[in-house]
Amino acid sequence: MNKIVTLAGDGIGPEIMAAGLSVLKAASKNTTFTYEIDPRDFGGIAIDHFGNPLPEETLNAAKQADAILLAAIGHPKYNNAPVRPEQGLLALRKALGLYANVRPLKIHKKLQNLSPIRNVENVDFVVIRELTGGIYFGKHELNADNAIDINEYSADEIRRIIRFAFETARGRDKRVTSVDKQNVLATSKLWHKIADEIAQEYPDVQLEHQLVDSCAMLLITHPQKFDVIVTENLFGDILTDEASSLAGTLGVMPSSSHGDQGVSLYEPIHGSAPDIEGKGIANPVSMVLSIAMMLRESFHEIALAERIENAVEQAFSKDIFTQDLGGKATTAEMTAAIIDHL
Amino acid sequence: MNKIVTLAGDGIGPEIMAAGLSVLKAASKNTTFTYEIDPRDFGGIAIDHFGNPLPEETLNAAKQADAILLAAIGHPKYNNAPVRPEQGLLALRKALGLYANVRPLKIHKKLQNLSPIRNVENVDFVVIRELTGGIYFGKHELNADNAIDINEYSADEIRRIIRFAFETARGRDKRVTSVDKQNVLATSKLWHKIADEIAQEYPDVQLEHQLVDSCAMLLITHPQKFDVIVTENLFGDILTDEASSLAGTLGVMPSSSHGDQGVSLYEPIHGSAPDIEGKGIANPVSMVLSIAMMLRESFHEIALAERIENAVEQAFSKDIFTQDLGGKATTAEMTAAIIDHL
Ligand SMILES: CC(C)[C@H](C(=O)O)[C@@H](O)C(=O)O
Ligand SMILES: CC(C)[C@H](C(=O)O)[C@@H](O)C(=O)O
Repeated sequence: MNKIVTLAGDGIGPEIMAAGLSVLKAASKNTTFTYEIDPRDFGGIAIDHFGNPLPEETLNAAKQADAILLAAIGHPKYNNAPVRPEQGLLALRKALGLYANVRPLKIHKKLQNLSPIRNVENVDFVVIRELTGGIYFGKHELNADNAIDINEYSADEIRRIIRFAFETARGRDKRVTSVDKQNVLATSKLWHKIADEIAQEYPDVQLEHQLVDSCAMLLITHPQKFDVIVTENLFGDILTDEASSLAGTLGVMPSSSHGDQGVSLYEPIHGSAPDIEGKGIANPVSMVLSIAMMLRESFHEIALAERIENAVEQAFSKDIFTQDLGGKATTAEMTAAIIDHL
Repeated sequence: MNKIVTLAGDGIGPEIMAAGLSVLKAASKNTTFTYEIDPRDFGGIAIDHFGNPLPEETLNAAKQADAILLAAIGHPKYNNAPVRPEQGLLALRKALGLYANVRPLKIHKKLQNLSPIRNVENVDFVVIRELTGGIYFGKHELNADNAIDINEYSADEIRRIIRFAFETARGRDKRVTSVDKQNVLATSKLWHKIADEIAQEYPDVQLEHQLVDSCAMLLITHPQKFDVIVTENLFGDILTDEASSLAGTLGVMPSSSHGDQGVSLYEPIHGSAPDIEGKGIANPVSMVLSIAMMLRESFHEIALAERIENAVEQAFSKDIFTQDLGGKATTAEMTAAIIDHL
């Protein structure tokens, strides 16, 4: 029995988690894939219940899980609070050693006209973002008259994420773009050098370097050029959100985060959308596709993952879209359409 | 007599500088605007001549100038060199205290079809990037096993650039978007707080905050929404290059950098394009428009600036474009067309 810890979180989180789990239930019925769900408080809801966005119980459950599903966290009511939901997310990433964040980008034919970009045909890349190092986890010092953040990377932290990218590229088009700011930053100089070194171990994979500023431009002017992009934490945060603009919506993009400790986490790339909370109109697709990613990457249930992904494609082909995609379907209708096509 | 120091630099730099200066000469003929040009070595060429990308002589001349024109620096031959052209640029910014980098974005009707974005009509914003602080100028430490960069901002550094943005907004649509990563960085928390404070001094200007990741997305999905964007050095580097993708070309975008010491610097946002060096096909427009910016911002020669800007518009209206804009005009032909329409 596979144990899946679910963190529904805040805003539309619980709605899309429920939708995703109903797809998982329908898809796995009469298969050999069995699982149990262990729902836990995380983010804002955990602050309300425990005064802590990542309560001890939640962390322990997550550590013992076979996989973790996260929907979304955050709410404006915590904006000026001393403890914020996002701190739980950063703490969870660190505690589970989830150093490799994977965000694939590929745009369904039916959704290409939603893109602000004229030509997104054949866009098919994945961004691998380092998730547990860099300026996110360096010392932060806030004073009245100045503030300091420390950006630090060890060679080992860089090596493992670069290797992860080269391994990913082997399963794809065998091209890695390493992104840094080596004309200014010491951490980037080290990054650049290590990327060159690791490339020696992968003679079948082609490496190119891009400066983060150029890459931010090329993502829009030449998105077809990329296969696997690998970058440090802060650059990855910016570039993955930028890349999602190619899809014209955040509502369909899944992600996974992997560590060395075994358990991986799967989540939509979008936020908790408090403005549409409780209205029953949230798009469940990125949650559903995150579940497909989980089936493939944590449980090696390739057939099951493909069945779910195909069902989403089928529903789109029948012109069933939620509001964010220009359609009229509610969360329940979109979910039902996916289940119908399983 | 106004003294203009010119730094033609490397690659296509000397070609576009010559083109720009011939437009300036033609435009100012028979006007009261008089000037003398003091050309100086800077960047790669200065490394070759002096072993230093910013020689003493160049810096002294720049300090005494009424304005500085920079074309472009950099060449792959310095990629692994101990001293690099970019170091001269960073040193010049710091030595002249050029803390406010201004990059306007507006897309000529005739060029809108070059944009990778479907709809760039009415895009009209300016990015104000802090240019002399942050992680660019913190301590950098590069070791074999780790590397560290220090990101530091003082409250005063933040205050003056935020004020600069509010002042700029007063001359425009009176809206400022302050961009930070306040959910993670201490420097961003300070930035965010100071933006709120300064906003009190400008009740006629509207302030909104965006996280840098969201902003990277909105620049592509909703570019019309922005008026004045203000952000710190590294975010500004990434976001301005990203924003330039809206234009589909770097060839037409000027910039200015201002400090407290009086002298300002004007330069195209593009690089030295060594691949087309010496071919006579470089696009001179961003250099020409940088000269117009200089006339307006350093010399208050509004009519002269507009005359040059209109001449560029006219040349475009007659379908005269360089190769990067899909046309066939050489640098000389493009320049002549602009001069013809003065
Ligand atoms: C919520 C925030 C701390 C987080 C980050 O910056 O990593 C988010 O933007 C993300 O990309 O997952
Ligand atoms: C050349 C480089 C150091 C510079 C920067 O990062 O500031 C450039 O990218 C720019 O934007 O002017």
